[in-house]
Amino acid sequence: MTRIINKPKDTVSQVLNGVAYIHQDILQRIPKTGILLRKELTPDRVAIISGGGSGHEPAHFGYIGENMLDASVSGPIFIPPTAEEVFEAIQKTDQGKGVLLVIKNFEADVNNFLQAEKQAKEAGHNVSHVIVNDDCSVETGSFEKRRRGVAGTVFVHKILGAAASEGKSLDELVSIGEKVINSMNSLGVALSSGTSLTGETSNFTLEKDMISFGIGIHGEEGYRSEPFHSSEHLANELLNKLLVQYDDYTNKRFAILVNGLGTTTVMEQYVFSNDVKRLLKLEGVTVVYAKTGNYMTSTNMAGISLTLLEITEESWLEYLKKPTNAFAW
Amino acid sequence: MTRIINKPKDTVSQVLNGVAYIHQDILQRIPKTGILLRKELTPDRVAIISGGGSGHEPAHFGYIGENMLDASVSGPIFIPPTAEEVFEAIQKTDQGKGVLLVIKNFEADVNNFLQAEKQAKEAGHNVSHVIVNDDCSVETGSFEKRRRGVAGTVFVHKILGAAASEGKSLDELVSIGEKVINSMNSLGVALSSGTSLTGETSNFTLEKDMISFGIGIHGEEGYRSEPFHSSEHLANELLNKLLVQYDDYTNKRFAILVNGLGTTTVMEQYVFSNDVKRLLKLEGVTVVYAKTGNYMTSTNMAGISLTLLEITEESWLEYLKKPTNAFAW
Repeated sequence: MTRIINKPKDTVSQVLNGVAYIHQDILQRIPKTGILLRKELTPDRVAIISGGGSGHEPAHFGYIGENMLDASVSGPIFIPPTAEEVFEAIQKTDQGKGVLLVIKNFEADVNNFLQAEKQAKEAGHNVSHVIVNDDCSVETGSFEKRRRGVAGTVFVHKILGAAASEGKSLDELVSIGEKVINSMNSLGVALSSGTSLTGETSNFTLEKDMISFGIGIHGEEGYRSEPFHSSEHLANELLNKLLVQYDDYTNKRFAILVNGLGTTTVMEQYVFSNDVKRLLKLEGVTVVYAKTGNYMTSTNMAGISLTLLEITEESWLEYLKKPTNAFAW
Repeated sequence: MTRIINKPKDTVSQVLNGVAYIHQDILQRIPKTGILLRKELTPDRVAIISGGGSGHEPAHFGYIGENMLDASVSGPIFIPPTAEEVFEAIQKTDQGKGVLLVIKNFEADVNNFLQAEKQAKEAGHNVSHVIVNDDCSVETGSFEKRRRGVAGTVFVHKILGAAASEGKSLDELVSIGEKVINSMNSLGVALSSGTSLTGETSNFTLEKDMISFGIGIHGEEGYRSEPFHSSEHLANELLNKLLVQYDDYTNKRFAILVNGLGTTTVMEQYVFSNDVKRLLKLEGVTVVYAKTGNYMTSTNMAGISLTLLEITEESWLEYLKKPTNAFAW
């Protein structure tokens, strides 16, 4: 499938320029970098930065704005930004209250962001981080594998962003972030693999009409492939695996995020949302906040992910509901 | 390509239920109809209703909310709702100030909405309408053809919705609407045809790596097919055809809408936006408002459309910028 791009090597830079143009009221690009910076930083607030490889649009620049991020740092497709760029974003956003990095749990991302944190601390900045690992598809039995950071990351952006605007300190934000992350689980299913920009290589192989449960947002293979049956069947599989992560889930309250993985239409996202609704009702689970849309994609993968966040603090719900001008929330 | 649905015949109803569930703070479904109704109607305001066939999600329900629509009425895929359903929506939304129907210029849509208007007038409602015909791909030489209503419809929703909230009368809204529509032009290009829900039939035929300029949102054939070159080439072709609709365009101010037609990724939408930016700058055209996203899709078509709206009244820009809680704006 042809894609609307120019030279593949220019794509990431052109995306950043396009975003900076369309959303010039909210953000600006630091020329020749992967950094998009909020136009007017909120003074007297801990700054919040997120980022990672490109290919997950509108993550993360779509979350820059009031009560969310102060900057995003984008690398090449599926490759994290350099430590130098993250360090530059820290310098540009620190308002004297410190800077919090929201990192997705992939080895290269963690390495580069933590190296930037170290460098920034040496330069006198107060910096800390949280590592998001909401993907519960990976068996934790093997110490070589790790839970990945996926769509739930945007819940972390919103909750910590709103908490920061309320005046929480860097230490308080780290503590809230870790609690949120420990209360959150995501799982995705692909109907087609994403491909490279030229369409020449696929991230994984999936035969016609087959689906793969538990895929990652960089095209990491899932835990099981089978023929597609129905939206309801997908919802049932994902929910079963997600709910068992919680003890006594019928007495808990949840925020949910239905996330399109790239080329899945709005129509399909709401059919799936309707199945999730029906199944959660049958299970007696209480949903107090819900969102559906393209929040964390994997280039042109067709598929969907579902995130459950147990709301254990009333303030999290307030933070989720606080208004923002971030264009992708 | 498999799609995330259940039985195709249940899809539209399940989409409406999914939307009513996820956005229950904003809207509700009138059971067993295609009507989604704003939860709290603004009193003392002309009500605004839009709708049409399904397959264009998030149109039109995504525009229900403050400063936009009071109700949307969805029919089956690519088939407008019945006059009876539109009439019911009029009855449900009329707050005593009258009701304005925003209709896309397709014969069946116009027929059913105008029949509902007639029926409502006989029942004592004050009802009027505007017909959106922003698509400039169709040669107007033939009287059998007509300019269609496409993505620019959402600019009409926003401008008239905000004007209605400001207290404009039904007649005033019709007059504003007609001026806006006369200042607006859209054009789309497809990289793949949309298909029926089962994938068995395509709306039109397009060979691999070929694109079609001037397609309609129901899969109406375009005015020219050719091999895909680049995003810049698409932007150039669409802009050339759009700008010639305006005399002396370098001295005019425009709002632009870059619209994904279904399965086009966020990444591609911003690469294209960047090309539009560059070309408009070269032409010396002033852009005062810009949006990029999936606003008016055509099921699973891959492609993009571009809308130009000449801002001839400063108030239009204010109306575009007024906040709304409509989820797709």
